[in-house]
Formats: sequence, C-alpha cells, structure tokens
Amino acid sequence: MYTYPELLHLVNQKISETTFGSNPKELYDPISYMMSLGGKRLRPVLTLMAHNVFSDEVHKSLDAALAIEVFHNFTLVHDDIMDNAPLRRGKETIFQKWNMPVAILSGDLMLIRSIDFLARTETSQFTTLLALFNDTAAKVCEGQQLDMNFESQSQVSHNEYIEMITLKTAVLLGASLEIGARIANASNEDAKHLYEFGKCIGIAFQIQDDILDSFGEKAEIGKRIGGDIASNKKTLLLIELLSSVHKDDLKLLQSLFVEPNTDAKIEGVLALYKKYQIKEFAESQKQQYLDLAHHHLNEVSVSPERKQLLFNTAHELMERVS
Amino acid sequence: MYTYPELLHLVNQKISETTFGSNPKELYDPISYMMSLGGKRLRPVLTLMAHNVFSDEVHKSLDAALAIEVFHNFTLVHDDIMDNAPLRRGKETIFQKWNMPVAILSGDLMLIRSIDFLARTETSQFTTLLALFNDTAAKVCEGQQLDMNFESQSQVSHNEYIEMITLKTAVLLGASLEIGARIANASNEDAKHLYEFGKCIGIAFQIQDDILDSFGEKAEIGKRIGGDIASNKKTLLLIELLSSVHKDDLKLLQSLFVEPNTDAKIEGVLALYKKYQIKEFAESQKQQYLDLAHHHLNEVSVSPERKQLLFNTAHELMERVS
Repeated sequence: MYTYPELLHLVNQKISETTFGSNPKELYDPISYMMSLGGKRLRPVLTLMAHNVFSDEVHKSLDAALAIEVFHNFTLVHDDIMDNAPLRRGKETIFQKWNMPVAILSGDLMLIRSIDFLARTETSQFTTLLALFNDTAAKVCEGQQLDMNFESQSQVSHNEYIEMITLKTAVLLGASLEIGARIANASNEDAKHLYEFGKCIGIAFQIQDDILDSFGEKAEIGKRIGGDIASNKKTLLLIELLSSVHKDDLKLLQSLFVEPNTDAKIEGVLALYKKYQIKEFAESQKQQYLDLAHHHLNEVSVSPERKQLLFNTAHELMERVS
Repeated sequence: MYTYPELLHLVNQKISETTFGSNPKELYDPISYMMSLGGKRLRPVLTLMAHNVFSDEVHKSLDAALAIEVFHNFTLVHDDIMDNAPLRRGKETIFQKWNMPVAILSGDLMLIRSIDFLARTETSQFTTLLALFNDTAAKVCEGQQLDMNFESQSQVSHNEYIEMITLKTAVLLGASLEIGARIANASNEDAKHLYEFGKCIGIAFQIQDDILDSFGEKAEIGKRIGGDIASNKKTLLLIELLSSVHKDDLKLLQSLFVEPNTDAKIEGVLALYKKYQIKEFAESQKQQYLDLAHHHLNEVSVSPERKQLLFNTAHELMERVS
C-alpha cells in the first residue's frame, strides 16, 4: 500500500505532466498559474487513497484524481471573483493578476477540461462516475450560492448552516473518495460508505475551521484570529450563540456587531462564546460527525489495515491547531 | 421528414419540460429566466435536422439538442458579464437583473447541466459525443478570448479574424449537426461532412453579420446600422480596408477612428468601404464559405430529398437583410 507522500507525489507528477492548451495564452497561462500554486491536493490524494483501499493499481484513478483537482481549482478561480479576493495561497488571484473576464473564461475552461480528464478513465462505470461528478459539481455551486445568500440573510438556522457547508465543501470530499473506490471496482455499498465517510469528515473539518478562527493558537497565512468575528460572519459558533443568548446579552451582541474597535469586538464576542460554552458545543458537533465518519469507514468491507491510512489522514486533518 | 416548425416545436417543448433545479432559487431562477427568453433555437434544431437526415427517430437526439442549447445559453450568460451587456434578446441580462456573482454561478451550473443532458442520450457512441462536446466547448472559450484580445490588439489579420469567428461561433454549429448525425448512427464520413457544412455556414453567417451592420436595410432589436463602425470594431470589413487602404486614405481613416461626430464617422468609413469595394470583397468571402458548405452537404451519402431542409435552412439564414 502507498503512503500519503507517495500518493501526493503521484498527483503532483500527474499535474505537472498535464497540458491544458496553449493558444490563446491569455486563456491558458492563468490555468497553468493556478494549477502550479500547489495546495494540499487533498481531494485527488483521497481519490487515490480510496482506490488503494481495494487495489494497488492506483494509477488507474490518476485521470479522475486530476479531474477532481482541476474542478476544485475551477471553483476557487470563480469564488475569488465573487469574493473579490486579492490573494489565494499567498499569491495573487487570477482575477487580480489578470482581470475578471480572463478569470471567468479560464475558470470555465478548467471546468470543461475536468470533464475531459474524467472521461480518460478506463472503467466500465463511466456513466455512474460522470453522473456523480456532475451532481457533485452542481451541489458545490448550490453551496456557494447559499454561502453568498447568508451574507444578506438576517437569520441562518443550524440546519441551514450544515446544509451549506455540506454542499460547498463536504460533498466533493465524499465524491473524491467514491470515485476512486468505483474505479477500483468496489461494491456499491463500500463506495457509498466511503462517500459518507468523506462527507462527514468534510463537515467536521469545516466546523473545526470555524472553531480555529476564534480559538486557534496562531494565525494561518492571510488570516488572523477572530477574522470571522470581525466580519460578523455567520459561522456555526455565531449561529449557536444567537440561538442560545439571553435577552440582555443579545443587546450586547448586537452592539458588538457594530462596534468599530475590532479588538474590543473580538474580545466581547469571545467572552459571550465562553459564557454560553459555544466552543464546547461546536466541538461536540464536530465529534458527532467524526464518529459518523468512523462508523462509515468501519462498514467498508476490507481488512482494517487497508483502511488505516484513511483513518490516519482524517485524524491528522483534525489535529490542526491553527 | 420533419419541417423546421415541427422540429422547433419539439425543441421548445423539451426545454419547457426541463427542470434545472429549484433550491437555492437565487441560482435556479436566473437559469429558467434565461432559457425562457427564447431565441431562434437554431443549434438544437440543427441537431434534430441532422438526425433526420439519417433517421426519423429524431426524439433520440432531443437530450443532446437540449444540452447544446443550454451550453449555448451558458456562453451568453458569461459573455454578457464580460461585455458588460445590459440587454439580451431585448430583456435584461442575468448580470443586470441579478448581479455578477449570480451570473457567474448560474452560468457554471448551466455548463454542468448541459453535460448531464448530453449524458442522458442513449447511444453506443457516448465517448465520441462527449469528446466532441468538450472539444467544442473549449474552442468556444478560446474564440471568446481571441475576440476580447482583438479589442486591445493593434493589428488583426484576415486569418486571425476567420480563426476567431470559427472558434467563437462556427464550431458549435458544426458540432450541433455532427452530434445529431452520430446519434442517428451516421457513418464517420457523413458526420464529419455535416460538421464541416455547419462550420462553413457559421463562418458565412458571421461574415454576413459584419456586412449587415454596415449595409443592412434596417436596425435589429438593440442594434443600429454602423454600430461596429462607431465602436471601431475589428470586423472583416475594417480588417480588409486596413490591409488595402492607400497611404492618404489611411490618414483619413485614422482620423475617423477618433471622430467624435458618430454620423460623420459612419459616413466617412462607409465611403471608404465603397471606394475600396469592401462590401464586394466580404460578399465574395461569404460566398466562398457557402460554396464549401454546399460541397460538404453534397458529399453526405443520402438522397437529395433528405438533405433539402438543411440546404433550405442554410439558404434562409443567408437571406436576412438586417
């Protein structure tokens, strides 16, 4: 069986070997630039990892893994336009470095190419793979729209929030795994368990992201502690606080929303999070999804050793402290 | 065999029966809106028409026809953002009626759904269809980028211009026909001849568009005679004029480019078009592509009656006077 670094190496090699086109360069240079920015390559590695649960011929899933990474990067290119984001992985976004039309069009082309790469996969189940890929792609768009809606929505419920992060982030992790499993000819049940495993890990990961923004040990690149609080972002923490806060504290919270002193604002909201044990609530939510993820991984009908790397990877994803 | 109105009816019925999704409505309402704006539905009708050349079971190409129309509308939605266009078919563009992020995202979803619809086609040649669809989609993006490049490019050659309109417009007409032919189990040669027929008709159509902008009888909705001249757009006519104009007239032309009085500008450029017989040149170019189109249609190995509607449709497309 392969290790994470070995699978990551295979993915990076595949990406560096891939040509997206050359002419006109205004269209293809941004794609090469975006794909060279790196990142964890978590999704394509998960595809190979899921394949490896059932078979050692992981190279058979490389085209699909590439498809998923290119699709993921397409969503980042278009999201960066919508979010007016200047930086991505510490480098200028396409939107910023070139311009908006170029970012729209090179993103479109990445989406088209991702389907092309998927279609290169030798499998008897291509129709199933394509349907899953497209269904997932549509859900990611729906999640992004819901996320944008939340900005202007006065109230967001706990369930709406979970639905949004499920669509925007978690389903793609699930699909990354299911696709690798199916190419390795896993049974339908096993493939679906891996999908659910990935989905639950994705939800837990997003909840952890919310927790770390308020309670992490140090700032990530381009972020700082309390960034979500400063921008009144409707995270799981804030949604839970709003639903449990007493009348008097609600007034305080509402005044904090418009507090011009950012440090005072963050300190004030953190104090309310503490008073209402919001961190503990979020941690328990995260744990619920982790437990569910492990349940699904346990159900996959292979020996424990073949699942160990997936188990470890999920564990490591949750060990971040910032 | 079916008539154009009959095929158009089938296409419109198919579109009106199609649901793209419902939630979140901010994402799906714009798609329904866009698809309900109408238009000639030329591309999907051509798909059915090509199918009908070989078989009367045109309903087998309806999903693919829908895919092509949804793809075409996706390109319009994104082009309207890039062109900052307020109107489309006399109605507000999605970008204008909603906002830019909604237009990006609903366009993305239309592209995803178009692949979905194509995948519903029952055919043994799905891999070929998908490869053709994706290849065409990529070319359309390349054409749009070239078109945008031309705006800031000081010189555009005749060949570069033909390449741009081929990619931006003509290949999709070719693919619309080839896809219908392949679903009807046409031979590879016949399918390719229909592709070339559609491509040549598309090029001739665009050349005619350039001619009509300067020499049409009356204005179309949202357009007026000389719009291209007023905006210094690099049409086939202007490119030809620039390559044949004498030194003295070049000075005049350059002064017309910055002439603030639009009527004087249009009149001045039209006079130069007349002096250098630019209309005649463009007409002869158009005719060359029409002849080539007819050559390819003649090569398709079915009886003349089965090709008559395609022949007539091409003829009617060229009969516009505005």
